[in-house]
Amino acid sequence: MTADATLPGVLVASGHWDPEPWALPFRADPGRPVMVWPKVTDPAAIHYVLAWAPPPEAFLGLPNLKAIFSLGAGVDHILGKAALPNVPVVRIVDPDLTMRMTEWVVLQVLLHHRRQLAYLRQQAAHRWEEIGQPVARDVRVGLMGLGELGQASARVLRSLGFDVAGWSRTPRTVPGVTCFSGTDGLEPFLARTDILVVLLPATPETRGILNRALFAKLPRDGALGGAVLINAGRGALQVEADIVEALETGALIGASLDVFEKEPLPSESPLWSRPDVVITPHVAATSDAAVLADGIRRAILDFEAGKPLSNLIDPKRGY
Amino acid sequence: MTADATLPGVLVASGHWDPEPWALPFRADPGRPVMVWPKVTDPAAIHYVLAWAPPPEAFLGLPNLKAIFSLGAGVDHILGKAALPNVPVVRIVDPDLTMRMTEWVVLQVLLHHRRQLAYLRQQAAHRWEEIGQPVARDVRVGLMGLGELGQASARVLRSLGFDVAGWSRTPRTVPGVTCFSGTDGLEPFLARTDILVVLLPATPETRGILNRALFAKLPRDGALGGAVLINAGRGALQVEADIVEALETGALIGASLDVFEKEPLPSESPLWSRPDVVITPHVAATSDAAVLADGIRRAILDFEAGKPLSNLIDPKRGY
Repeated sequence: MTADATLPGVLVASGHWDPEPWALPFRADPGRPVMVWPKVTDPAAIHYVLAWAPPPEAFLGLPNLKAIFSLGAGVDHILGKAALPNVPVVRIVDPDLTMRMTEWVVLQVLLHHRRQLAYLRQQAAHRWEEIGQPVARDVRVGLMGLGELGQASARVLRSLGFDVAGWSRTPRTVPGVTCFSGTDGLEPFLARTDILVVLLPATPETRGILNRALFAKLPRDGALGGAVLINAGRGALQVEADIVEALETGALIGASLDVFEKEPLPSESPLWSRPDVVITPHVAATSDAAVLADGIRRAILDFEAGKPLSNLIDPKRGY
Repeated sequence: MTADATLPGVLVASGHWDPEPWALPFRADPGRPVMVWPKVTDPAAIHYVLAWAPPPEAFLGLPNLKAIFSLGAGVDHILGKAALPNVPVVRIVDPDLTMRMTEWVVLQVLLHHRRQLAYLRQQAAHRWEEIGQPVARDVRVGLMGLGELGQASARVLRSLGFDVAGWSRTPRTVPGVTCFSGTDGLEPFLARTDILVVLLPATPETRGILNRALFAKLPRDGALGGAVLINAGRGALQVEADIVEALETGALIGASLDVFEKEPLPSESPLWSRPDVVITPHVAATSDAAVLADGIRRAILDFEAGKPLSNLIDPKRGY
């Protein structure tokens, strides 16, 4: 520890993100060593790492490490590392992040439900023509993933009148939402889903789950005339070649994707040019460093005051 | 009355809309004469007119007329007629219609808030680039019109975290919504509005209210970097030349319009080609004849059972 350090130190390892907004609130704590990877001047002083897609070495040689804090909602960017030390990993649960995700999900659901892409094409042709659309209660939205994010989206989608169901790995009860779970629940869940909203974490179990076999289980005779895929979870969940094929064959009639197998999405991907696909560059729920770093600092101060850490992830489960 | 008629008769005068879906539920009432304008075979049998943009003559020569039912949320298409008889005019208050309008308003607010038009342009150029956006609580939505439709939109917009205010002709109290009213309240309401959502009826007072002078009162320094106009009320409210000018000068940074001075919007209108404008062909809250006609029939059966009519409009006020 440096001579005047009286508080446990923080290391920011933020991958390609600017580390400074994350370091800033901690620099205001008198006596708190704050380092930015790879400049680890005093490894023994570091009790906490704030990490986003960190290099595997970032966690090595820190003898006093107490906890790792993920800078986003997902933790696959941390759990994937071979050299993960045996300390608690804390994920962010932040109202701002949840609200932003809810906005994006609701926007994309409404955009497909209200045929906005078709109306924009008509507008480009100066064409005035009504396109039929069902009432929301006849449209079945299915949420894969019923954590904080899934439940928040479910609430607003229900208030808009949609017929909402959800699927999760382990059984859940969410008011007003028809809940399915586990391997057995997946098929009946998909069979009643017109708009599939995916908010799952990337784990060994979920990798590539959005594939041809899954799309084939979605109904083609729903109120929208086919099924729509909306993925704001993780790119690793989806097989993009299968999405393109499903759009070609009619297994899907539209998609909104915020995440991709490879990010940035390569310029040659056929997804970019499809008129039935909306692409956003992984911005559905962007971490606002100023707000989130303050939240992590508060969690650390609570921890230092003797309270247990909350929002711990289970490394075996993967989220 | 025809020989076997035992119930008061219905006349459907539905302008350019197909009259049959509106006539259908009444044809199922035994002994109910049902006529479709202009084939008025027995004027004395008619107690009710179901009207959408009716010709002025539609109400003439009906000695036993008891009430007029509007087939849409607005009633300006009826009240504008010179020869309006002195009978109650009933407007539609239908949950389906309210939900559809709410969907459209929420979609358009989110579309501008989340910069979806800019992202679609980036997508067309295969460009992966984050566009900054404020959190919803920093975005001030202002609803002009706080009736059924305005209040329903306010509820969902609040649940998404927006800072919602409303303006109405006469004072209203809506939970969670900062309420302004009357001529004095208009300027302070506009001064705190980043996204202006207009759900007003067309009345002599509101015609042309969305003009250069009003746009000049919207802030240019809000969280979105300017003001957005969303009009799903009536085309008569807006001066389209002023909207185009406001978009050119920066008094507005975007607009979503479902209604127009002249409908269909003429092909030569400069609005069609603007990248900052979303145009939909008066479909925000389309009347679903099957559902709405049933509702009108139920209102008529209640009236015939001695109950007073509800949702009456005040011809002097205009809505």
